[in-house]
Amino acid sequence: MLLGKLAQSIGAAVEGDDSIEITGIAPLATANKTQIAFIARKAFIDQLSTTSAAAVILTREVADSSQYVGNKLISDNPYLAYAKATRFFDPFPSKTEAFIHPSATVAPNATIGERVYIGANTVIEDHVVVGDETQIGSGCFIGQGTTLGKNCLLHSNVSVYHDVDIGDRVILHSFAVIGADGFGFAPSSEGWVKIHQLGGVSIGDDVEIGSATAVDRGALGDTVLEDGVKLDNHVHIAHNVSIGKNTAFAAMSGVAGSTKIGANCTVAGMVGFAGHLTIVDNVHFTGKTMVSSDVLEPGVYSSGVPLQPANVWRKNAIRLGKLDEYVRVLNRLAKKLND
Amino acid sequence: MLLGKLAQSIGAAVEGDDSIEITGIAPLATANKTQIAFIARKAFIDQLSTTSAAAVILTREVADSSQYVGNKLISDNPYLAYAKATRFFDPFPSKTEAFIHPSATVAPNATIGERVYIGANTVIEDHVVVGDETQIGSGCFIGQGTTLGKNCLLHSNVSVYHDVDIGDRVILHSFAVIGADGFGFAPSSEGWVKIHQLGGVSIGDDVEIGSATAVDRGALGDTVLEDGVKLDNHVHIAHNVSIGKNTAFAAMSGVAGSTKIGANCTVAGMVGFAGHLTIVDNVHFTGKTMVSSDVLEPGVYSSGVPLQPANVWRKNAIRLGKLDEYVRVLNRLAKKLND
Amino acid sequence: MLLGKLAQSIGAAVEGDDSIEITGIAPLATANKTQIAFIARKAFIDQLSTTSAAAVILTREVADSSQYVGNKLISDNPYLAYAKATRFFDPFPSKTEAFIHPSATVAPNATIGERVYIGANTVIEDHVVVGDETQIGSGCFIGQGTTLGKNCLLHSNVSVYHDVDIGDRVILHSFAVIGADGFGFAPSSEGWVKIHQLGGVSIGDDVEIGSATAVDRGALGDTVLEDGVKLDNHVHIAHNVSIGKNTAFAAMSGVAGSTKIGANCTVAGMVGFAGHLTIVDNVHFTGKTMVSSDVLEPGVYSSGVPLQPANVWRKNAIRLGKLDEYVRVLNRLAKKLND
Repeated sequence: MLLGKLAQSIGAAVEGDDSIEITGIAPLATANKTQIAFIARKAFIDQLSTTSAAAVILTREVADSSQYVGNKLISDNPYLAYAKATRFFDPFPSKTEAFIHPSATVAPNATIGERVYIGANTVIEDHVVVGDETQIGSGCFIGQGTTLGKNCLLHSNVSVYHDVDIGDRVILHSFAVIGADGFGFAPSSEGWVKIHQLGGVSIGDDVEIGSATAVDRGALGDTVLEDGVKLDNHVHIAHNVSIGKNTAFAAMSGVAGSTKIGANCTVAGMVGFAGHLTIVDNVHFTGKTMVSSDVLEPGVYSSGVPLQPANVWRKNAIRLGKLDEYVRVLNRLAKKLND
Repeated sequence: MLLGKLAQSIGAAVEGDDSIEITGIAPLATANKTQIAFIARKAFIDQLSTTSAAAVILTREVADSSQYVGNKLISDNPYLAYAKATRFFDPFPSKTEAFIHPSATVAPNATIGERVYIGANTVIEDHVVVGDETQIGSGCFIGQGTTLGKNCLLHSNVSVYHDVDIGDRVILHSFAVIGADGFGFAPSSEGWVKIHQLGGVSIGDDVEIGSATAVDRGALGDTVLEDGVKLDNHVHIAHNVSIGKNTAFAAMSGVAGSTKIGANCTVAGMVGFAGHLTIVDNVHFTGKTMVSSDVLEPGVYSSGVPLQPANVWRKNAIRLGKLDEYVRVLNRLAKKLND
Repeated sequence: MLLGKLAQSIGAAVEGDDSIEITGIAPLATANKTQIAFIARKAFIDQLSTTSAAAVILTREVADSSQYVGNKLISDNPYLAYAKATRFFDPFPSKTEAFIHPSATVAPNATIGERVYIGANTVIEDHVVVGDETQIGSGCFIGQGTTLGKNCLLHSNVSVYHDVDIGDRVILHSFAVIGADGFGFAPSSEGWVKIHQLGGVSIGDDVEIGSATAVDRGALGDTVLEDGVKLDNHVHIAHNVSIGKNTAFAAMSGVAGSTKIGANCTVAGMVGFAGHLTIVDNVHFTGKTMVSSDVLEPGVYSSGVPLQPANVWRKNAIRLGKLDEYVRVLNRLAKKLND
């Protein structure tokens, strides 16, 4: 791809030779003569003097404050420009022509759009709808009555249960599972009685769901992921949860049933949400936070405990187990001294 | 389904027209004229005045204390009655006739019961036994010598390794894996030496196992889940763990090797158990608890840290890292004041 | 297998009848007349007097300090000797002859080594290389351009994306996924823009990866697991992480992007690492630790909070939320008293 064309595609202005051929993207320190690089933070400005990159995406300000004489891709937001450039060099083998592998099992009454790719051994059940230019890898299962939008990408070995509704440009990674039963049982004298999960899952456009992430179907009514939601690997979304537009979850976080999370939130890794909570828009949770109550004010919230050497921590942890007692002693002392 | 017949099936008494046709279940607020609803808590009693539901499951007491004049399904335990009703409206396509998909690979010496359904691409290895009326979805793997009981439901893409013993009416969700190797290695001067896992897994009746949940085989002897155990998604059960009757685990909890957990326990999400512990019956753990010692008294246990605004929490967390020091100061002050 | 031959294979010396036939391994308490047992800790020495085992692996010292008169397998390291013995009794059906199941889809330009086994419905894409004596179970997916070394074992239903490089004697369990996209998005005014993940994954020799564990591909450059790394179930390794030789992770631990972990570390369950950290060699983390900063000294580190009865813990947790305030009071009191 020529540098000039790439620049145009990512909204950057070339300063230098726009006719050179670009073959990839690499970090400043290791980029070779046909790869571009980017500089997102001034901290890396020194690496400009030694990079071999074909061109560097950088801001006007960084360009002017460095001695860098190589080809420049001037951008107000180099990180975003880099993100936009990556799609031209993705080694993933996209399929753009209509193809159904002979070993796939596609129900005759399924509706398959144009230029759809269906890989080996994939099973498409009755009344499924697959939108145009959607690519489904091998070994996937799409349950009865489910709808997939246009331009989706399901990697190999994805399971989507019955009656799930998925929008356009959704990406599902291997071992993602959408629409399995929510965890519902009523206690009885004979043990747990299963509450069959009668709802579905509704997933908007531009959602990406990581490997081994599970989004359960609703008990009554749907579990909902709005447009632009991004879930990393090993995320658990319980029944009847709803997650607002563009909210992103890092790996290993989970949400218990019926909790509503707003738009534009970010959730770091291993965060756990109790059930039936309300979280407003623009809330951010740091790693390992336990969200056990509503969050009604935007902001950053935490509860993760930072590590210490085990012998130091052990003493602190023992004291923590008697903290209430110590505070009572403290209060008595304060009272005595103030008297 | 006629209301009268439904009432009988769920152990409720009809007050009103038992001849109306019921097509589903929905929340009080959204139920339409052919759906039933239920009221499990008095807090929702106001919704009775506006519901359009065909009938409502409720207690005698709630019925008498409301002005509700619609059809009633009187039950001592409306939540349990609702649970029992759900199975009549489950949209999941159950298969009730004998069928083996031509693309399935079934070992000639496997023993397949009556009215068994085996989906596309499923692999059944040598000497497997599948009980009557068990339904196995597509893309499953059942390893050599494994036994599945009667009336089990394996959703698509489940892996059960060799020599696993599974009871009746067990439900396994997509990407559940039973019988993978426990994590065992002996340190040596040349690195870790694998301890091959020679035991199996024994799973009782009426067990349900969620998506992406893993129950490892034993090192020597079996890992055991007793009757009625329920495991949500992303649960990890290590080798030689045993879990007592009707104990339920919410998502993302895990148990390290050889820990024994009693009956009728409940484990909330993200709870972690160390290895080689004993937990008695009727113990309950709240979310994110770290179980690092035996629990020999029934009751409720916790250690999860509730969230705060990050700037508040950061100060507390720093103090926590010196808690032992502060308590020593406190003790000195107390001594001085008491002297 | 004759006891004498077994002893030789595990580096132990027989005292007793080396011609007896051994059929398995079991705990001291339950071993029968054709099974061997081992005693790794002196605490179990009393069980020697009642065991029915065919022979017992034990140290010279334990042998001499007991009255045990049965067959002995004398070893300096009985636990290691036991580990070495397990491989002779593993019930897993290993395949040692060349075989490609007719339902497998193998690209004509893939390079398949000698005595490779490829199970039913497995998909091998273009330009894949599979080393000699590697066994691939059913329902696996091996993406374009990926290399698997010699003597690997992929259990059923494993996904390896494109352009992944895997060494020799690597074991991957069901639902392990190698090379899915790292979680990378650039914020923009139109929402998140996907950063296509252009790097790969490089996995050394003798690595074992558990069920439902995910190792993501790099954004630019590779994610790296060095030789002898062992990952339990449900582990998450983000893009561009590197993990040093022989480091072992217990279940449900995860590492955020670009963190570098040294060699010979051990990570207990549910440990979470923030991104962009450096952890040196020989560091050990106890369960549920939050690793939020570099660890530059070998040793043991912790931050998990031990459980308490819920009513006790609740009081302590409330106090913890005001810890900074209490310490300020404490400091004022101390100052007052010292004045």
